[in-house]
Amino acid sequence: MSNPSVLILPGDGIGQEVMAEVRKIITWFGDKRGLNFDVSEDLVGGAAYDKHGVPLADETMAKAQEADAVLLGAVGGPKYDDLDFSVKPERGLLRLRKEMDLYSNLRPAQCFDALADFSSLKKELVAGLDIMIVRELTSGVYFGEPRGIFEEGNERVGINTQRYTESEIERAARSAFELAMRRNKKLCSMEKANVMESGILWREVVTEVAKDYPEVELSHMYADNGAMQLVRAPKQFDVILTDNLFGDILSDCAAMLTGSLGMLPSASLGAPMENGRPKALYEPVHGSAPDITGQGKANPCACILSFAMALRYSFDQGDEATRLEQAVEKVLADGVRTGDLMQSDGGTPVSTSEMGDAVVAAL
Amino acid sequence: MSNPSVLILPGDGIGQEVMAEVRKIITWFGDKRGLNFDVSEDLVGGAAYDKHGVPLADETMAKAQEADAVLLGAVGGPKYDDLDFSVKPERGLLRLRKEMDLYSNLRPAQCFDALADFSSLKKELVAGLDIMIVRELTSGVYFGEPRGIFEEGNERVGINTQRYTESEIERAARSAFELAMRRNKKLCSMEKANVMESGILWREVVTEVAKDYPEVELSHMYADNGAMQLVRAPKQFDVILTDNLFGDILSDCAAMLTGSLGMLPSASLGAPMENGRPKALYEPVHGSAPDITGQGKANPCACILSFAMALRYSFDQGDEATRLEQAVEKVLADGVRTGDLMQSDGGTPVSTSEMGDAVVAAL
Ligand SMILES: CC(C)[C@H](C(=O)O)[C@@H](O)C(=O)O
Ligand SMILES: CC(C)[C@H](C(=O)O)[C@@H](O)C(=O)O
Repeated sequence: MSNPSVLILPGDGIGQEVMAEVRKIITWFGDKRGLNFDVSEDLVGGAAYDKHGVPLADETMAKAQEADAVLLGAVGGPKYDDLDFSVKPERGLLRLRKEMDLYSNLRPAQCFDALADFSSLKKELVAGLDIMIVRELTSGVYFGEPRGIFEEGNERVGINTQRYTESEIERAARSAFELAMRRNKKLCSMEKANVMESGILWREVVTEVAKDYPEVELSHMYADNGAMQLVRAPKQFDVILTDNLFGDILSDCAAMLTGSLGMLPSASLGAPMENGRPKALYEPVHGSAPDITGQGKANPCACILSFAMALRYSFDQGDEATRLEQAVEKVLADGVRTGDLMQSDGGTPVSTSEMGDAVVAAL
Repeated sequence: MSNPSVLILPGDGIGQEVMAEVRKIITWFGDKRGLNFDVSEDLVGGAAYDKHGVPLADETMAKAQEADAVLLGAVGGPKYDDLDFSVKPERGLLRLRKEMDLYSNLRPAQCFDALADFSSLKKELVAGLDIMIVRELTSGVYFGEPRGIFEEGNERVGINTQRYTESEIERAARSAFELAMRRNKKLCSMEKANVMESGILWREVVTEVAKDYPEVELSHMYADNGAMQLVRAPKQFDVILTDNLFGDILSDCAAMLTGSLGMLPSASLGAPMENGRPKALYEPVHGSAPDITGQGKANPCACILSFAMALRYSFDQGDEATRLEQAVEKVLADGVRTGDLMQSDGGTPVSTSEMGDAVVAAL
């Protein structure tokens, strides 16, 4: 049997640097644990635009469809700010999500013990925090039609359409309930059913799906209150389920609560392929960070932990995933710190590459 | 000349209780400062539904259109949770906003010195915080058509439409720039122009309006990053301008940062009427709080401070508004505390009515 395939798309900014560290980790798993992957690499985002004039070439799209897992670094940068909407770096990422049909975006918001002081929240409110946000990723206002800027009378009007079918809501909900079953069996679904009909349908479908998971305690919350509750007392949550746009905002809010944005991974999962593995793309929550690009300052942990998610969700290697996560935690506990993690209380300052080496050593 | 008119709509839950305290304040201004108002009262929300079968009767709507200022308490409660969408308590509030054309919603997120410890954020991050969020309130996905739940093939689809015309964006932007001119001359506009065409138009129009306010430093931020930055370092902001839906979420997030939700007022302003006053509705940011209704536990300060905003924005009584705001701050500094403001460090516990009396005494 051939090795499972991994397509690496470093993208823009610090994407290249952090992905180099992930490669070290992949090599270690091959050498020491006999887990070998066929790794290939390609372009996405501004890097793809520079070469192909589009943020994702058709061949790259085809490769991503074939890959057992895609690892993405980050897209975007000031260089591309004035590009037309249709070729902006983000469109490459959105095309991957849409065409691979990655409807379930898993965003853990986890506070690392060694970093609890980093949060802007009081330590006791975030220490031990461990939330999983499930964001629907292939529908809603991100993709709904009609959309565009149109002439109307003597002025222009900007239009986007929030649109959810029952089946789109259902499959995202199922993936959230499945996760809740493997966690603390609490699920909170967030929408604006008091204002939006799409939110009413969302609530109805989620309530229906809940019948298949009687052990899971389901609650509903308006998304504005959700944002408040995340800030007030984030530990009340276990799994949060929400749509594409609310998920974009609420997951970033939750990520920032932990104070360790440079540490947070994500997984975007679709339906199972023929080999039983889900279509999958893994990426750090942080962006391309143009301000520190090329300086060896980036924290590779979020990207490394994204690979841990790949081990767990694509390759059924939960134990190896845990091993990798524990290695990262150990490195943090030892006080090894990239720039984003430095605080007055000290620690050992390291470069991107030294951080990668430290994780390998801890493995 | 007749006195300016104020229409009081206490609404549901604690609305009634907190409004009783506002009446004491109004009486004080009449007795002691010669500022007399013609006060009338009517029903909105569940209270209106109970009597009229709709959350806002047409006569009440007509009265609101005539009033120089409307003061609203809160709407909603579990009793009304299962009502049809079209008659839910919220629809009463949304009808007022839409038909009075209250396009500019001002939501200060201010941290009171005496309460800086209440925030879930570290004190140094919020002490002295003073943000003004301007939320567009009459358009966007709250009101866009088509909307509803439709049959499509063999399933249902929930649809809402995000829709902004140039003139809708422009008038909201102008009101934000005007406010910025009277504050620290910094304006940050938030949208998702990287994903939504309506966001692209938003950014274009705001950039155009900025030319009329060369002294104001304008920046743009994606709304997801906005949520992050609010949590990370809220003091970087002065005025934030955003649309109806993002504004709903981001303003609640910002409100919770202050830790004093029971203290935060809001103003919703429309175009000037014949007498030069803007159409205006004032309401606390907090909700109807069914859990503490009728127990004398509610904090009336948010509603009292909403009346202070009425003095400033409807009645051109900025000095009297400041007087009232300072009275509230003095009461807090003296350690007078409703239940929501009690912490282990003590303070004098008071009821809703005692809090109102304390503010009157401080005046
Ligand atoms: C880059 C952008 C298109 C994207 C989004 O809005 O989904 C990002 O913010 C994210 O959350 O992954
Ligand atoms: C009650 C509800 C309709 C309302 C809204 O969504 O606008 C509320 O959340 C608010 O922010 O004033």
